[in-house]
Amino acid sequence: MNPPIITLTSDFGPDLFVGQMKGVILGVCPRARLVDLSHGVASQDVWGGALVLEQILGVFPAGTVHLAVVDPGVGSQRRGLAIAALGQYWVGPDNGLFTPPLRADPGAKAYHLTNARYFRPTVSATFHGRDVFAPVAAHLARGVSPASLGPEVADPVRLEWPLPRRDNDALRGQVLFADRFGNLITNLERGLVEEFLDGRPARVELGGLVVEGLSSCYAAAAPGQPLALFNSLERLELAINNGDLSGKLGLSPLGARGAPVLVRAGEQTRQAR
Amino acid sequence: MNPPIITLTSDFGPDLFVGQMKGVILGVCPRARLVDLSHGVASQDVWGGALVLEQILGVFPAGTVHLAVVDPGVGSQRRGLAIAALGQYWVGPDNGLFTPPLRADPGAKAYHLTNARYFRPTVSATFHGRDVFAPVAAHLARGVSPASLGPEVADPVRLEWPLPRRDNDALRGQVLFADRFGNLITNLERGLVEEFLDGRPARVELGGLVVEGLSSCYAAAAPGQPLALFNSLERLELAINNGDLSGKLGLSPLGARGAPVLVRAGEQTRQAR
Amino acid sequence: MNPPIITLTSDFGPDLFVGQMKGVILGVCPRARLVDLSHGVASQDVWGGALVLEQILGVFPAGTVHLAVVDPGVGSQRRGLAIAALGQYWVGPDNGLFTPPLRADPGAKAYHLTNARYFRPTVSATFHGRDVFAPVAAHLARGVSPASLGPEVADPVRLEWPLPRRDNDALRGQVLFADRFGNLITNLERGLVEEFLDGRPARVELGGLVVEGLSSCYAAAAPGQPLALFNSLERLELAINNGDLSGKLGLSPLGARGAPVLVRAGEQTRQAR
Repeated sequence: MNPPIITLTSDFGPDLFVGQMKGVILGVCPRARLVDLSHGVASQDVWGGALVLEQILGVFPAGTVHLAVVDPGVGSQRRGLAIAALGQYWVGPDNGLFTPPLRADPGAKAYHLTNARYFRPTVSATFHGRDVFAPVAAHLARGVSPASLGPEVADPVRLEWPLPRRDNDALRGQVLFADRFGNLITNLERGLVEEFLDGRPARVELGGLVVEGLSSCYAAAAPGQPLALFNSLERLELAINNGDLSGKLGLSPLGARGAPVLVRAGEQTRQAR
Repeated sequence: MNPPIITLTSDFGPDLFVGQMKGVILGVCPRARLVDLSHGVASQDVWGGALVLEQILGVFPAGTVHLAVVDPGVGSQRRGLAIAALGQYWVGPDNGLFTPPLRADPGAKAYHLTNARYFRPTVSATFHGRDVFAPVAAHLARGVSPASLGPEVADPVRLEWPLPRRDNDALRGQVLFADRFGNLITNLERGLVEEFLDGRPARVELGGLVVEGLSSCYAAAAPGQPLALFNSLERLELAINNGDLSGKLGLSPLGARGAPVLVRAGEQTRQAR
Repeated sequence: MNPPIITLTSDFGPDLFVGQMKGVILGVCPRARLVDLSHGVASQDVWGGALVLEQILGVFPAGTVHLAVVDPGVGSQRRGLAIAALGQYWVGPDNGLFTPPLRADPGAKAYHLTNARYFRPTVSATFHGRDVFAPVAAHLARGVSPASLGPEVADPVRLEWPLPRRDNDALRGQVLFADRFGNLITNLERGLVEEFLDGRPARVELGGLVVEGLSSCYAAAAPGQPLALFNSLERLELAINNGDLSGKLGLSPLGARGAPVLVRAGEQTRQAR
């Protein structure tokens, strides 16, 4: 049987908190394969953690367990959850982190982590990542049924997800995040954009920036030129070939989030690239 | 048999030096599970490395090997050591890095790494992490006895550990380090503090900052309010709920280290939280 | 049989792009051992990526697969390659990244990745690391022959490698990179330097900095003193004991690259250390 996979996401930074969670996991499930997704989520930025989880939907094999800890409410009354969705599992605090799998799978089930048999013997008030979520994730990886972790809950916390709007003359979306290269990833999915354009050329606007036409890849634009394309998430993305668009626009990673992006039908013929 | 675990700690940064050590380890012990604890120790900060190791005492399963390299004296006459303590192993330079396991286990044994059979065939003068400590750690993980690595030594280097003092009216400790969230972790352990307070309410002082009462978790204080609590290491910690205390106090990570912290008996009734 | 090793190098930063590649790899080759070399290569800095790969030649066991993605031309006509050299494999874009193994092994073979059977079912235009190179690396780790990936190519892209020059009175090299400690690593190999010196003492010059004699290790110089030594790559390196030479010289990591370094025969007797 293949070794189980556990991914890790947190706002802990590249620091020993993560190592402690891994030590606990390997004590429970020594065969687990551990994959760090991101520990660079901004401190206590639940929305940023949810975006990380959204981007890996569909990438990992069936049965993967995703441990995610962005947990400003640790030790308070906020619940701990295990989510079963899309043939995979998510474990962490009930604060909206798991909105992406809950949105993606209408049949998702959420379980309140109440069975202390799957926790560390002593649970601290400040580090449930190590004392609750890590051992629970490891037990799931060993084959423990999520239903044995605690009662099913009907109302896991969900973040309000920003959805595009369509007017007569424009598709209105927003920037979800800026990546390390300064590329701006939007909430506009390829299918929606193509349906709106219906064969017409695209004109993409962000603040004062206007990009005419869609490129097939970064290198299709001249170096230093802004461009728009559908990225590896099948999302509309604004970028500069060989450049840093968010830096050029003076947007910080958190400042870029939510910036309005418009797609209109362009006046020029679509650029063949 | 479970695959052996080897943790890694260094001041190398997230860079390829660490990858080279892992390549050497897997060449000797292909089944080893590798867990990074921290490679963000400040350059040549032996004390910072020791604090990392102190925080994971008791977290990893029996038999774990901890490879730690903060090694300004590499290539000089400083010894290389393997330590056997608490049912686990530590490997690295003899410069005080291993003070935590030596303090924690009075029966700890230290061995001078002299048996070149367990080194790489060629040992450089600047990277014993790769050429000596990584292969030694891997051989320990494979089951080699520490006594076969070299002669036992009676005087491994120990750092002077800052201990709290108790006056008539106060318990005097200090900040050990600031974590990524700006929380300040002290050397005041729960048992000592509770014994001193003997049921009286606590008043915690750091410079001009005064915190009345102990909180059970971060969220028990109002957002932006300073608080004190016992953290996941069972240590007294000062923090701001949803905030960055060390930043607010203008303390750099290294500047925070050693700042005096006082616990007195407070005048108010203990805040029930 | 030992589990196969796959190393990862990129300019993605410590971010979830790397995690996505790992998810894909483990889906194809669940037993693979994954080792991050560096994800801190400057954005689109192909030369920086090649230097990472150069430094681990000879460190990993036979059969290791090295996945490297610094890929400004993703989605364009640039080829994807698998290289077989030195008993190991390299996978990534054909842009010069793999110059080190191509230089090191005259019998190296390069294959154009054309067999889509070894790709993900859908290949995006912006993330071949996840959709092409990761699954190809995983298939190589499982034992797929490189020749089955596509036709052999005779002209993989090679970077022009900076070679030292020897005058009558000096050996002229350059800085290849600055490491995290501010040490400056040159392209002057020990054999070449020792042949040039032929027993004479060394005088090493970098800009206005002059270092007389070679040290055996960092600690052989007084704290704060500049020194020169042969490092763990058997390369001439300039450093300051307990200090940051590139910082002191005002050189940024990229600014240091290419700075001329001269070795002359010194006038003093060699310092015995």
